Amino acid sequence: MITVPTLLLDEEKCRRNIRIMASKARENGIIFRPHFKTHVSREPGEWFREEGVDRITVSSFRMARYFAEEGWNDILVAFPVNIPEIDTINSLSGKIKLSILVESSYTVEFLGRKLENPVDVYIKIDLGYNRTGITYEDTGTINSVLSAISKSGKMRFTGFLSHSGQSYNARSVEEIMEIHNKSIEKVLELKAVFIGQYPDLTISLGDTPTCSIAEDFTMIDEIRPGNFVFFDLMQVIIGSCSPDMVAVAMACPVVAVHPERNELVIYGGAVHFSKESITDATGRTIYGMVVEDNGPGWGDFVEDAILSKLSQEHGIIEAPADYIKRFKPGDIIKIMPVHSCLTAHAMREYQTLQGRTVTMMS
Amino acid sequence: MITVPTLLLDEEKCRRNIRIMASKARENGIIFRPHFKTHVSREPGEWFREEGVDRITVSSFRMARYFAEEGWNDILVAFPVNIPEIDTINSLSGKIKLSILVESSYTVEFLGRKLENPVDVYIKIDLGYNRTGITYEDTGTINSVLSAISKSGKMRFTGFLSHSGQSYNARSVEEIMEIHNKSIEKVLELKAVFIGQYPDLTISLGDTPTCSIAEDFTMIDEIRPGNFVFFDLMQVIIGSCSPDMVAVAMACPVVAVHPERNELVIYGGAVHFSKESITDATGRTIYGMVVEDNGPGWGDFVEDAILSKLSQEHGIIEAPADYIKRFKPGDIIKIMPVHSCLTAHAMREYQTLQGRTVTMMS
Repeated sequence: MITVPTLLLDEEKCRRNIRIMASKARENGIIFRPHFKTHVSREPGEWFREEGVDRITVSSFRMARYFAEEGWNDILVAFPVNIPEIDTINSLSGKIKLSILVESSYTVEFLGRKLENPVDVYIKIDLGYNRTGITYEDTGTINSVLSAISKSGKMRFTGFLSHSGQSYNARSVEEIMEIHNKSIEKVLELKAVFIGQYPDLTISLGDTPTCSIAEDFTMIDEIRPGNFVFFDLMQVIIGSCSPDMVAVAMACPVVAVHPERNELVIYGGAVHFSKESITDATGRTIYGMVVEDNGPGWGDFVEDAILSKLSQEHGIIEAPADYIKRFKPGDIIKIMPVHSCLTAHAMREYQTLQGRTVTMMS
Repeated sequence: MITVPTLLLDEEKCRRNIRIMASKARENGIIFRPHFKTHVSREPGEWFREEGVDRITVSSFRMARYFAEEGWNDILVAFPVNIPEIDTINSLSGKIKLSILVESSYTVEFLGRKLENPVDVYIKIDLGYNRTGITYEDTGTINSVLSAISKSGKMRFTGFLSHSGQSYNARSVEEIMEIHNKSIEKVLELKAVFIGQYPDLTISLGDTPTCSIAEDFTMIDEIRPGNFVFFDLMQVIIGSCSPDMVAVAMACPVVAVHPERNELVIYGGAVHFSKESITDATGRTIYGMVVEDNGPGWGDFVEDAILSKLSQEHGIIEAPADYIKRFKPGDIIKIMPVHSCLTAHAMREYQTLQGRTVTMMS
């Protein structure tokens, strides 16, 4: 029985999402190194293992430590390496095959002096997202980083890694494909410059929208999507998935009914959903969309029923009058969250539709 | 030494904030029932106790249980009562003096059937925030709730409670005072209707902006501010406090420097800061403002240096070129968060300027 805000996990949908992506990588003959930053939990990790996954991506050394303890021994920390954590890096690289991400000679030289064990190194490349990394055309900087890597006895250059996060601005399959094609074009241009010198270099890409929609990845070597394990409202809006592929939903108790303004107040706020939002076509801010309650799980969107405001613990549902009047305090309402990674992090655990609790990294 | 994103707590500023608010309540001869939803931690709770506080407010039964275990025995859960948690309510009310908040006869009648121990009951009143509660002019609904309360043998009517959250839209001391004066006027109108029938009724108000700025609270009975314990960037913008009263700041490692676009990339993202933002006068979205690093603590704002973007673990600092060029990967930068309640919840622990770790409710 649900008595407080609860993050429901539909294991069947989640396993299907994993299976589809693993098959896509297999059919393309490329490495599938899924990003575990979305679920950050042992048990969905095991579902990946059942699909043949043996190497993973995480976004912090803390996460790397957690998954290393769960038996994963080939882990890439796909975040510009945080050098104050050198002790953790040395400890982890003594136990597992650790890959790190660099983008400056300064960092590489620091590591050259401090590393105690061999590590694999990817260079972070910016293909147009402009968050971080070396611009793909800046071969001068790339060469100086490569030279610093080669001077260190402990670092092995693996390849170029990029994240085309600009795909999150797409709103259709066509826009996603345009971003994918541009990314591939740019990264192949980069590869052509360095493949002679580094014949084994790996090209690693991996945002959920392009990995979910594009079919042909034969020209690259590795994909690292993460969010697809659950998907969420944002991915539905982007066009990465259909609503019935989303594997998580929040279940929240109604605490007050305000028919005079077509609103419900729910126990479920910013500390549960996170404050991630999307803006709809009319300019409304949306923190989640109400879905039909299907017994243990959930179904389609309820038309025009949205999570429109969030305080620390309160949420406000706006919906048509005839929907609002079905509810009384104590009833449960189900909501598809905007961003499953942040909602999962805020909630810290899942409940499967069979009622089992799945814990996350604490 | 700071190696990962860390939430710094300046104990001295925090204790001063507590002392000022406790004095204000004492001078007004009213009850100080501080809201513990911001710090949600044992140790700052003890600093309140040292100022004579012996009754508190929380926003969930989970928090009530945590603080009851820490020896607090007069707790108000200032959230529309979540009736699916009836077992927790019955367990807590058997151990401490528990106060709950209601706003419908439906809920009161449910409690009338299920409560096993006496509880104190406040009625939630809406003075203009329009989040939840009964409109102060709707004496018909208030009377029906009062009648339902009186029929139950277990509920004692304490008084009327309101939260003037609209004060968060204020941007000056004058606007805060206008909201305060209107709230007081409305709540006294309500009190006049019911004081004959309930001569002991408590009027409880308590948002941080009005409690920080207004001086005269002699016409009400209780205040419940919470955020003031730390304050934050939002309270500075509202006009509730000066920047040097803010008792928390994030310390984050720099992981990449991009002088070509006046940006730093920090290890510190949405899972650390929360995605709470404010919009500045030019329409920019701001997730935090950079403050000068003062050794263990922090000082004034660095002009025009803001946390402008957040991914799950990355943050982007935009700042003037001459400021950016001071940094290299591995350096620590300090940032005042927008909303201390949500940042604290995301971080789950504090580090005092003396290096002591202060844990939160887990």
